[in-house]
Amino acid sequence: MIPDKQSIAEAHERIKPYIHKTPVLTSASLDEMAGCHMYFKCENFQKVGAFKARGAMNAILKLGPEQLKKGVATHSSGNHAQALARAAKILGVKAYIVMPRTAPEIKKRGVKGYGGEIFECEPTLQARESTLAEVIKKTGATEIHPFNNDDVMEGQATCAKELLDEVGPLDFLLAPVGGGGLLSGTALAAHYFAPQTAVIAGEPAGSDDAFRSLLSGKIEPAQSNTIADGLLTTLGDKTFPIIRKYVKEIITVSDDEIVSAMRLLYERLKIVVEPSATVPFAAVMKGKAKFAGKNVGVILSGGNVDPERLGKLFSSQS
Amino acid sequence: MIPDKQSIAEAHERIKPYIHKTPVLTSASLDEMAGCHMYFKCENFQKVGAFKARGAMNAILKLGPEQLKKGVATHSSGNHAQALARAAKILGVKAYIVMPRTAPEIKKRGVKGYGGEIFECEPTLQARESTLAEVIKKTGATEIHPFNNDDVMEGQATCAKELLDEVGPLDFLLAPVGGGGLLSGTALAAHYFAPQTAVIAGEPAGSDDAFRSLLSGKIEPAQSNTIADGLLTTLGDKTFPIIRKYVKEIITVSDDEIVSAMRLLYERLKIVVEPSATVPFAAVMKGKAKFAGKNVGVILSGGNVDPERLGKLFSSQS
Repeated sequence: MIPDKQSIAEAHERIKPYIHKTPVLTSASLDEMAGCHMYFKCENFQKVGAFKARGAMNAILKLGPEQLKKGVATHSSGNHAQALARAAKILGVKAYIVMPRTAPEIKKRGVKGYGGEIFECEPTLQARESTLAEVIKKTGATEIHPFNNDDVMEGQATCAKELLDEVGPLDFLLAPVGGGGLLSGTALAAHYFAPQTAVIAGEPAGSDDAFRSLLSGKIEPAQSNTIADGLLTTLGDKTFPIIRKYVKEIITVSDDEIVSAMRLLYERLKIVVEPSATVPFAAVMKGKAKFAGKNVGVILSGGNVDPERLGKLFSSQS
Repeated sequence: MIPDKQSIAEAHERIKPYIHKTPVLTSASLDEMAGCHMYFKCENFQKVGAFKARGAMNAILKLGPEQLKKGVATHSSGNHAQALARAAKILGVKAYIVMPRTAPEIKKRGVKGYGGEIFECEPTLQARESTLAEVIKKTGATEIHPFNNDDVMEGQATCAKELLDEVGPLDFLLAPVGGGGLLSGTALAAHYFAPQTAVIAGEPAGSDDAFRSLLSGKIEPAQSNTIADGLLTTLGDKTFPIIRKYVKEIITVSDDEIVSAMRLLYERLKIVVEPSATVPFAAVMKGKAKFAGKNVGVILSGGNVDPERLGKLFSSQS
């Protein structure tokens, strides 16, 4: 069932003890450059370094005792894997995580650090899905999909709600779009809690499937020609209808625009934001005319980028 | 006159409209590593990227109209120069900044960006002081010293007050020490607003003049054998007596310990902290036994380190 106003408010109360109320940062110098007033919601400071902690926590807290006994499972090479392993650890239940064998060691260590059990597979969607099916068959675990799951979307919606609670209604609110979990949750939260706020997504031009899906009216497959490695996912049948209904526009940005935006966030806000999470801010800087003089919320969705990669990205541009 | 409880509270009200109330971050994973509970006061998010915005703003707001008319002056190659230029710009008065000609272009641009007028000199303390004396003679401007100034110390004290207001009394509170403006302000604020809180300083081993000054009972000259380039200053005759009276201990750390601590802050808190500002956290990680199980405030005093330098520091170690 699509999350409603009350269920999102309840989700927020449900997960509050387990997540950070992340700070909202502002910057006079960035505002001057962008020509609008921005409120940066710092989910890069969230538990596990990304908003994913919200959805995973909400989903697991809504399971019944019989389900919990058998644990949870997902396939993910990214932040959702750690978020789910962490949520399972908090409730003292098992987490089975299917990861491509090519996933970075640091991500594997992160999952193991939370006591998650990793099942490696070939790095294809098919291998991931079949391995997950086997694991679930064997263990009876409940699958918690990274985004195509109502409880996960409901959890992600708490991020925009928290921002709107703190700063009041905005003219615009921007989130990145990959599979659409955060974006659909953001769009629902704005619709319920600040209907005057227009929700806009940022998407990498090298993986602009959501942009094309809005044009064609059906879910288009993702490509993967971008440094924004958290946004390579195709929309789901639960996220797409919400995005289609409630998201006003999708702005695409190049990798160069993403790196320039990362550098600005580094230099002016003194924070570390991963490429995927920088996309909405890059979209504001690209679409200045639209945002001129407006109050603009920008969700910085995660901060998991190691310093070596950051240095390489910056030096590739200068 | 040494700032008292009321004057610090008044300073806080005075500067509030012009500074950020910086967020306090916590991290379960860093707490686990350190064995204590840390509250990170993020002055790296402060205006101009450092706590210096507080002292400069307070000092200039306390000038009379006749003084303001003639402007303010200082010699500084660092964050105080920008902080003073910004404070002067806000009040619409002139700022004359003496900088060594070797100061980084980015710092000069920062000062000019706030409309400050730069006077370049040779990179010696003597040249800086004589050039400043000339500028003051010519302009009648009021000197605002970076740290050896009661109003500046009073302004810096608002940082610890703000932290204690938010999180309540702590067992320990750590600040870095260079010239001692932040440290003396921190020690006074703790003394007045949370006397049970022990104030400890972190200092680079390669410039441990404050450590040695506490041992010898007189101001010892600074050396400059450290990457913590904001802490190369010698204590002043106004800061030293306060530090001697109210600071419990100074912990020295190596450059290697500073870089390791910077990396932890980057990876776990997702924030950019300059080497000098990382010293107190490095001191906690070094002195774990002392802080075990305690509530520890850590002032992260600034974030002005460019990404190229950050990358070099990190790669030099790995």
